[in-house]
Order: sequence, then structure tokens, then C-alpha cells
Amino acid sequence: MSTLLEQLIESLRVLPGVGQKTAQRMAYHLLDREREGGKRLAEMLGVALDSIGHCRQCRDFTETELCAICASASRDRHQLCAVESPSDRLAIEQATGYRGVYFILQGRLSPLDGIGPRELGLDQLAARLAEGEVTELIIATNPTVEGEATAHYLAQLARQHGVRPSRLAHGVPLGGELEYVDRGTLAHAFGGRSDMP
Amino acid sequence: MSTLLEQLIESLRVLPGVGQKTAQRMAYHLLDREREGGKRLAEMLGVALDSIGHCRQCRDFTETELCAICASASRDRHQLCAVESPSDRLAIEQATGYRGVYFILQGRLSPLDGIGPRELGLDQLAARLAEGEVTELIIATNPTVEGEATAHYLAQLARQHGVRPSRLAHGVPLGGELEYVDRGTLAHAFGGRSDMP
Repeated sequence: MSTLLEQLIESLRVLPGVGQKTAQRMAYHLLDREREGGKRLAEMLGVALDSIGHCRQCRDFTETELCAICASASRDRHQLCAVESPSDRLAIEQATGYRGVYFILQGRLSPLDGIGPRELGLDQLAARLAEGEVTELIIATNPTVEGEATAHYLAQLARQHGVRPSRLAHGVPLGGELEYVDRGTLAHAFGGRSDMP
Repeated sequence: MSTLLEQLIESLRVLPGVGQKTAQRMAYHLLDREREGGKRLAEMLGVALDSIGHCRQCRDFTETELCAICASASRDRHQLCAVESPSDRLAIEQATGYRGVYFILQGRLSPLDGIGPRELGLDQLAARLAEGEVTELIIATNPTVEGEATAHYLAQLARQHGVRPSRLAHGVPLGGELEYVDRGTLAHAFGGRSDMP
């Protein structure tokens, strides 16, 4: 096998979830059928990795100093929604009509992995809450153990600065069938039932 | 979302088996944790896609005129092994002690997809067989319908040039259990049984 090809395969393994076999398949596919697309990818990777940094305000990825949402004049700066990742922000943006702004933690509290409040930029979040503009902190971390721990920490932080913390509702997913919903979710949904109008 | 990020995600989708979600995950992973690896990948992609072509003799991918195997003085040029893809060649190379040379079809006969003898370089293969150096054509196409059709075509081509065609043995895989082997394989193995010494 050509050395250059081996090097290409090796460098493709930097992608998440890509092992030796997949990297081989990708390399052969690009060489065989997608030389143009591959070259475009090479350029984009170079440019993007050089230019994309973090938004000064919300820590989202952006190539400008402020991301489009933080820079927008039409967003409501009284509501701040904390999410774990840019993809979570994107999901909320696509599914809801939320018009406030975001804070992207880029992770969740996980002391064993060395991820503490500093790594999540919580000093920056605290400073933002201290400014007094934010009235509600919508906590949209994932409903995992670590996400919940992070949510509790954030709620405490909000209260310290006189900001009202709120949390996404948990319950039976729309379109889901009760018998297939996991026990924890069902118990939560049952306990949190509301009166019908 | 930043435009540059969207463009990066879009270009990652050129990779096989990578859809919108995976491309997003890859982009975030690279931006978050693998900027160095990502830049190396960008460089390697650029260099590899520019420099890697096909070996003049066996059609394998290589950045030189002849691949390492075709250029090697220690390989036996009387045996020629036809495989569908470079990964098949690699598998044979790693598993067997084969010392002959290869011919890489880069596909299999598939008239419906517009892949005929010309696309597989069979004119080139015929010219090679006509030279008279090759005495055995080992046909190692995959045991699929199209692979078998290709194998029959290749065997005919070999006989036309007075070259002996041979085919990899089919049968029960080593370490396999009879009850889990598919019927076709079992029937083939049963019919092709050999006397024990």
C-alpha cells in the first residue's frame, strides 16, 4: 500500500467513531469517486479550524467575535437558556419559538473527567447573571445524571444572583406509547400530572 | 449558526455513510478537541487527493507510477490475482503468504450501473494475459451474484489467452459452527468435500 494512502487513512481516524476499517473505506471512496468533494473538504477544514473560535458572549462556535444570535438585535436578553452543546442549541432553535439568547456550556460537570465549573465557563455565566439584565435562566441540560447535577449547580448560581431558574419539562414524549416509555420517565410524568382544562 | 461551520458540516457529508447528524458531530468534535488532528487531516487530504493515482500495471492506488508490489523484484509474475478492491488485496496480503502480483478491478461487472468490462480495465488485463508471462489467474472476486458473474467472465478471458483460471475455495469458515452456516455455503462445502488423508 502506498505510504501516502496509509497516512491519509491514519489521519481520517481523528474523526469521532471512525476506526481503521471505516477510515480505509472513506479513503478509497474519496479517491475513487469524490476527489472534488474531498478537496473541498480539505479546504473547508483548513479554513474552518483556523477561523472558527468561540462567541465572546455565549461560547458557541463562530468565526466572528459574536455569534449571529448574540449579535441579533431582535433577541430578548432577559431570557438566557443554558445548553450543553451547540447541537442542543440548534435543536431548541429549530423546534421552539424561543426568542431569548443562549449560553453554551460546551460540556457538563464531570469531576472525574476534570470538568469543573471553570471548564464550563461558569465564571463567565456568573458575571453575566450579575449584570442584572437576565431575569430567567432556562436550564436545558440533558436529563442524564451529570446533566442533572449540572442543572442543580446552575439553579443555585441563578438564585445567588436573584435570577429565576427554570428547567425543561420531563414526561411522556409526544407520539410515544406508555408501555414503551421507560419507568423513570413514566414515574416522573405521573407525579407531574396536571389538571385538564 | 456560523456560515463557515455550516459549510464545514456540508463538506463533511462527502464522506461515505456520513449524514447531517454525524457531520455535525464530527465538526463539533474537531473544533472542540481535535483542531491539530483536523488540520493534519486537511493537509493529508489535499496532498493525497492530488498525488495518488492508479498503478500503471495493477490499477491499485499509489502515488508512484508503479505500486510497491508491482515494483517489487521479489514477487512472482507468473501468478496474477484479480480482486475487486484495494481492501480485498490488502486482506489477501495480510492473511496469506501469496507472493504473486495483483490486478485490481476497482469494482465488479454490473451492467445496470453502467459498469462493464471497460470500466474494470479488462482490456488492460487481456493485454497483460496476452503477454504470456502469466500462467495462473487467481480469481478472488466476492462470492456475490455480481462477483460470480465477474469471475465467470474473467475465467473465459483467461482461457482465451491460454491462462489457467482458478477460484478461491468456498466452504465452511474456520471456527464456524455448521448449524449457523448459511444453506448455500453448506451445500457448496458438502458437494466440494475432499477425501481425508
